[in-house]
Amino acid sequence: MRAPRGSSITALGWPQEAAKRMLINNLDPEVAERPDDLVVYGGTGKAARDWPSFHALVRTLDTLRDDETMLVQSGRPVGVFRTHEWAPRVLLANSNLVGDWATWPEFRRLEKLGLTMYGQMTAGSWIYIGTQGILQGTYETFAAVAEKRFGGSLAGTLTLTAGCGGMGGAQPLAVTMNGGACLIVDVDRSRLDRRVATRYLDVVADSLDEAVSLAVAAKAERRALSVGVVGNAATVFPELLRRGVEIDIVTDQTSAHDPLSYVPEGVDPGDAPDYAAAKPDEFTDRARASMAAHVAAMVGFMDAGAEVFDYGNSIRGEAQLGGYERAFAFPGFVPAYIRPLFCEGKGPFRWAALSGDPADIAATDRAVLELFPENESLARWIRMAGERVAFQGLPARICWLGYGERDKAGVRFNEMVASGELSAPIVIGRDHLDAGSVASPYRETEAMADGSDAIADWPLLNALVNTASGASWVSIHHGGGVGIGRSIHAGQVCVADGTALAGQKIERVLTNDPGMGVIRHVDAGYDRAAEVATERGVRVPMAE
Amino acid sequence: MRAPRGSSITALGWPQEAAKRMLINNLDPEVAERPDDLVVYGGTGKAARDWPSFHALVRTLDTLRDDETMLVQSGRPVGVFRTHEWAPRVLLANSNLVGDWATWPEFRRLEKLGLTMYGQMTAGSWIYIGTQGILQGTYETFAAVAEKRFGGSLAGTLTLTAGCGGMGGAQPLAVTMNGGACLIVDVDRSRLDRRVATRYLDVVADSLDEAVSLAVAAKAERRALSVGVVGNAATVFPELLRRGVEIDIVTDQTSAHDPLSYVPEGVDPGDAPDYAAAKPDEFTDRARASMAAHVAAMVGFMDAGAEVFDYGNSIRGEAQLGGYERAFAFPGFVPAYIRPLFCEGKGPFRWAALSGDPADIAATDRAVLELFPENESLARWIRMAGERVAFQGLPARICWLGYGERDKAGVRFNEMVASGELSAPIVIGRDHLDAGSVASPYRETEAMADGSDAIADWPLLNALVNTASGASWVSIHHGGGVGIGRSIHAGQVCVADGTALAGQKIERVLTNDPGMGVIRHVDAGYDRAAEVATERGVRVPMAE
Ligand SMILES: NC(=O)c1ccc[n+]([C@@H]2O[C@H](COP(=O)([O-])OP(=O)(O)OC[C@H]3O[C@@H](n4cnc5c(N)ncnc54)[C@H](O)[C@@H]3O)[C@@H](O)[C@H]2O)c1
Ligand SMILES: NC(=O)c1ccc[n+]([C@@H]2O[C@H](COP(=O)([O-])OP(=O)(O)OC[C@H]3O[C@@H](n4cnc5c(N)ncnc54)[C@H](O)[C@@H]3O)[C@@H](O)[C@H]2O)c1
Repeated sequence: MRAPRGSSITALGWPQEAAKRMLINNLDPEVAERPDDLVVYGGTGKAARDWPSFHALVRTLDTLRDDETMLVQSGRPVGVFRTHEWAPRVLLANSNLVGDWATWPEFRRLEKLGLTMYGQMTAGSWIYIGTQGILQGTYETFAAVAEKRFGGSLAGTLTLTAGCGGMGGAQPLAVTMNGGACLIVDVDRSRLDRRVATRYLDVVADSLDEAVSLAVAAKAERRALSVGVVGNAATVFPELLRRGVEIDIVTDQTSAHDPLSYVPEGVDPGDAPDYAAAKPDEFTDRARASMAAHVAAMVGFMDAGAEVFDYGNSIRGEAQLGGYERAFAFPGFVPAYIRPLFCEGKGPFRWAALSGDPADIAATDRAVLELFPENESLARWIRMAGERVAFQGLPARICWLGYGERDKAGVRFNEMVASGELSAPIVIGRDHLDAGSVASPYRETEAMADGSDAIADWPLLNALVNTASGASWVSIHHGGGVGIGRSIHAGQVCVADGTALAGQKIERVLTNDPGMGVIRHVDAGYDRAAEVATERGVRVPMAE
Repeated sequence: MRAPRGSSITALGWPQEAAKRMLINNLDPEVAERPDDLVVYGGTGKAARDWPSFHALVRTLDTLRDDETMLVQSGRPVGVFRTHEWAPRVLLANSNLVGDWATWPEFRRLEKLGLTMYGQMTAGSWIYIGTQGILQGTYETFAAVAEKRFGGSLAGTLTLTAGCGGMGGAQPLAVTMNGGACLIVDVDRSRLDRRVATRYLDVVADSLDEAVSLAVAAKAERRALSVGVVGNAATVFPELLRRGVEIDIVTDQTSAHDPLSYVPEGVDPGDAPDYAAAKPDEFTDRARASMAAHVAAMVGFMDAGAEVFDYGNSIRGEAQLGGYERAFAFPGFVPAYIRPLFCEGKGPFRWAALSGDPADIAATDRAVLELFPENESLARWIRMAGERVAFQGLPARICWLGYGERDKAGVRFNEMVASGELSAPIVIGRDHLDAGSVASPYRETEAMADGSDAIADWPLLNALVNTASGASWVSIHHGGGVGIGRSIHAGQVCVADGTALAGQKIERVLTNDPGMGVIRHVDAGYDRAAEVATERGVRVPMAE
């Protein structure tokens, strides 16, 4: 399956056509991890509940009028209502459960009854763009690590990590883009091979010994190199610690958010899905015990002086449940590196070319470079991405932009569609991991200055204000990234179809959406956010 | 404090003025239970976080433009963004927490830090109209009980209940409107006296003996009479069971949803707030033990043949936590009586006259009688309400209307404002307890046919679609009615200011909002809902 390309449409308008193309694109085999099961990424993050729902979604999008809105409940279309031209064409709510029932076992019970699906973040909200989506965030994070500890570059450092899946596969390239050496462990060889094919990973070693000697040599020669090795992180991490390999940075992106996706020690990855399905409780216990060993080794590296952080997969929480007490000894990446960006409304802005033509992305890349000539790190990223990133599915680009920047870029793209500089409309969205769109106490809102980590009003207000500002589709999800019971988050996508109306909508949505990040951090007491609000004119009633 | 009345405004438009008046009206001493503490009803359900927030809300509403939207996070205004004319003027999210943190102790910890407030349902969303709000629902419920068990009337029956507060105070009048005798227990004499003053309760007895003899005599003579008695329900219910008083119907509306609001046996109601604040854990344990005794007596009445139901205050859940195993032996009122109405999108439609003039409500009463001449029970209610209901704060009316009815009434009211038949605009809203606006497994979504009780996508979609349809303010709350961790629900209010734009918005919102009730119940497999969808043209993609 592959999304339609080009400038002629079968839906009644571009926003509807765009939603349909992005839904299908999420299931393009180039993009999705397991398209036959409708799984896009991140464990079991799905684009639609089941195949009948998928077909009903496509059929409904093709008949939906410009003043109608389709409602999607956990990947199934449940209604169509008459709204108006400024309203979103699609509203989605995925995986949401009432608090006391918000656990994995209850979620799986309901999923088995056919009543819900796991939407992850951009899987169920139709704006996943493959591994590039995470690459920019990972690149920014490692750049921040380099800035903080290693004089601005990772040259001469060795990073150890695990998990080379849909998101985690961005890590080796992000490290080498920052000049460093990287050793990445995955229990499933096919995941490593796939990243070599897409040029995200340089080489897969045949043994741990070979992997270590390649990585250590690269470090010594200050060469950028990424080395994959097959193994279970719960075994390999302690082994590397025992051997005393000189590792500077340690993190992890195995699918730890879901104890039925993390492969326990002693289990063959090929057998894991059946085993997890047959004996979920036993599997969970074993996975958590393995995660405890895995995290204990990470803390060991920290004690030995390495820079160690949780990369947003909830592994500390699971290791704690597995009985390891010091699991939260190292920080999450957000408070450590990302929060200062959130205070400016900065986050993972992304767009895709509905034409399917890479030239359209190249043109938008140039436009971004022209719009923000003073931003050097942005320019470096855009250039490197143009050279190194292989597109998956519809050509797409991501870069981190903040309040006052996203709207500029969006309006410019819309003008380029209108003028014919681009051959078809552009969709503009973002990850749910953004400045003001998520409550997730183990990740995005970990250790907020005022203790408001678990307050979930913010992502809901974010979804409401995007709905009220003219977004083309808006979503509210539960449990993305860190698992059921641990997060609530919202997404939005706008369609730049070159019309004046789209331009007005884009201006408002791409101002208000990052604006939520600014006011959320003003309210929590961050000085930088208050400065940004004052300088850039974000209205905060309590400060008036 | 009293909301401004009349037809001249200080805000920049009627929707903004309406939000301001309804916020203030919620805190009118005639309406609110504890206005000085900003508490409107239902335990600690508040209209604003604190007084500085209240003043900022009013100030911001007075300067808010017709294309701006104010964001309210748990009773505090946190931002103002430019949106558009069709967008709501206010978006609210109250009391929401990430699932794993959605407990009373964590909520109270965050509340103490000043980070959240308890919004209940219509307290934090500014559309509480005093005890009448619940009266119609209670009247409908007792009418359904009469229909089911007693040949259509409660004459010759005795109902036992407890809790004569903001919501519970509607019970005695609802029973007498249905022709029955009612004995109501409250631990706080002032609550009973207050209901006598507003004509909701006929008499307060001086002793339990007197109360019983009055009530039993009324039952014997098939006379409608309501008798209040001061006492703790956990003591009085078992005592009445022991005495073998012939009680036909038993329910309860003490503030059981919050174990710090329910007064334990042996505690003076005057001392309870301080005691609860000083020793919350001990207080909770004692309250739950009392609720266990209270519910055990209710089950005893059930075993003796009475019609017994939980009236939506979560007392069964708390009694279970208090160690009583048969707590869920009797059903909640929704599956027992209300769900068939929900399948038609029927629910508590309400409106208030911003003029402050009772004549405006009298005119809308006549309009409703004219619009639905075939609906006899509606007509009986409207006439009785006109005679018996004392207004609190701005004059208001409530009646249950379904899909295809609410929009008709709303559009008619808007025409009446335009033509001058009404002296000022009307606000039109509803309770969060509605057909498609709530997930609450101990109340509104208890025992759904497909097991989807805890699926919380529906209220979120409801809030999103109302935001997308033109409501004037929209809210998403957590924990209303049944307590933190147990519910997620949404509200909406539209302002009929007589403009053509308001008419279009009202038509859409008041179609789509009850439409959510229809599609929610179609999806859950209710035949009646599927019939309604087919007959009245509600589009359900999976059925196409
Ligand atoms: N930091 C972020 O910004 C961010 C964003 C999204 C998701 N995440 C989280 O990152 C994690 C990874 O996401 P993904 O999309 O790559 O998941 P994925 O399921 O596509 O990949 C997980 C990988 O981990 C491997 N794995 C599982 N158990 C292992 C073990 N014991 N040892 C070694 N390898 C093992 C699997 O073989 C697989 O390749 C998830 O928990 C996700 O929620 C983080
Ligand atoms: N069924 C519905 O439609 C519905 C709607 C909203 C709220 N509720 C629930 O109903 C309950 C009552 O709401 P409210 O607004 O009237 O609350 P409230 O706080 O205004 O009143 C509660 C009353 O219970 C009394 N009380 C407390 N403990 C008692 C005891 N042990 N014995 C006797 N009396 C006792 C108090 O004195 C008070 O008068 C709440 O739990 C609320 O969540 C139900």
